[in-house]
Amino acid sequence: MPKTSPIQLTPVGVVRSDIKRPMLTAGESGLSLDERKDSIKAYHRRVKASECELVIDPQWEELLDGIEGFSHILVLYWPHLIDPEQRKLRKVHPMGRKDLPRQGIFATCSPARPNPVLVSAVPLVNRKNNILTVKGFEAVDGSPIIDVKPYSKSYLQVENLIMPAWMEQIHREVEDS
Amino acid sequence: MPKTSPIQLTPVGVVRSDIKRPMLTAGESGLSLDERKDSIKAYHRRVKASECELVIDPQWEELLDGIEGFSHILVLYWPHLIDPEQRKLRKVHPMGRKDLPRQGIFATCSPARPNPVLVSAVPLVNRKNNILTVKGFEAVDGSPIIDVKPYSKSYLQVENLIMPAWMEQIHREVEDS
Repeated sequence: MPKTSPIQLTPVGVVRSDIKRPMLTAGESGLSLDERKDSIKAYHRRVKASECELVIDPQWEELLDGIEGFSHILVLYWPHLIDPEQRKLRKVHPMGRKDLPRQGIFATCSPARPNPVLVSAVPLVNRKNNILTVKGFEAVDGSPIIDVKPYSKSYLQVENLIMPAWMEQIHREVEDS
Repeated sequence: MPKTSPIQLTPVGVVRSDIKRPMLTAGESGLSLDERKDSIKAYHRRVKASECELVIDPQWEELLDGIEGFSHILVLYWPHLIDPEQRKLRKVHPMGRKDLPRQGIFATCSPARPNPVLVSAVPLVNRKNNILTVKGFEAVDGSPIIDVKPYSKSYLQVENLIMPAWMEQIHREVEDS
C-alpha cells in the first residue's frame, strides 16, 4: 500500500437551507419502527419539494458561468455536524435501523465515514450571481460546499442497476407509493 | 459569507490502472481537431472496456462488507497529477477545445478546479478482500481514493436531463455511433 499524503480542501461556499438538523437525529426520539418510517417518509417528501440556496464565495462567482445551461448539477458537500469520532465507525445498521443487517460503511450512504464528502444530484432552479437555487437537496443549513459540477451522463448514469435487498427495501419505504 | 475552516482528508486507498497519464495530456501533441477527436474517441472506447483495481488500505477492509451486493459504485478520487497552480483556473475551453466556448470551471468536468474531488459511477466487477475490480474507470494509475459509496438511485438518478449544446456535442462525438 503506497503512502499517500493528506489532502486539504477549502470550502467554496455554504448551504442556506430550512433544514436545521439531519434526518436521523430528527427521527430518533423513542419512536416505534413504523412511526420512524412514517416520519422519514414525510421528511423525504418535504425535502424533495423544498428549495434551498448554495451560496458560493464571491471570489469564485465567475466559475459558475455557463452552469445555467444544465438542468441538474452535482453538489459535493461536508456534513459539518458529524462528530469526528463517528468517522471511525466500521459497520452500521443502514439508517440506524436495527431490522436491517449491519453493513460496512462503504456499502452504505451513511454520512459517518472516513472522508465524509457527500454527493447529491439535484435540479438547478436558477442562478443569480454567486447564488444557486436548487430543489430537493438534503444538506443541513450551514454545510460547507466542496464542489459544484454539471450533471454528466457519462460519469453518473448507469444501466441495469442492481441493489441488495435492504436498500431496495429502504427505497420502497421512503418513496411515496 | 460565513467563514468555513479547511477540511482535511486522508486517502483510503489508491487506484491501480493501466492508464498512466490523463487523456488531455495524451491528446495534445500538435494533432488537428479531427485527429484529436478520433484520439479521444479511441481513448474513451479503450477505457470503457478496461478493468482496474481500487486497492483499499487494509485497515479499512471491513468497511467494504456488503458492497458486493451492488452492481455499481460511486468512486471519489483525487487527480494527483494536477499542478496546484491549475486549481486557480477560472474559465476553460471544455476539454481544451478552442472550438467550444469558454465556460466557468464549475460548469465543466475539468479536473482543474478549486477542490478537485472527481466523481465517477462505475460497474463493480468483483471484490476480493480489500481490492475492488471496476470497469470503465478513467482515473490515472496511482490516484488517491477518497471514498467509495454504493450507487444510490435517490442521490444520483435524475429525470429529464438538459445539457447545453457544447456538452451535447462532446457526448455525441465521444460516444461510438
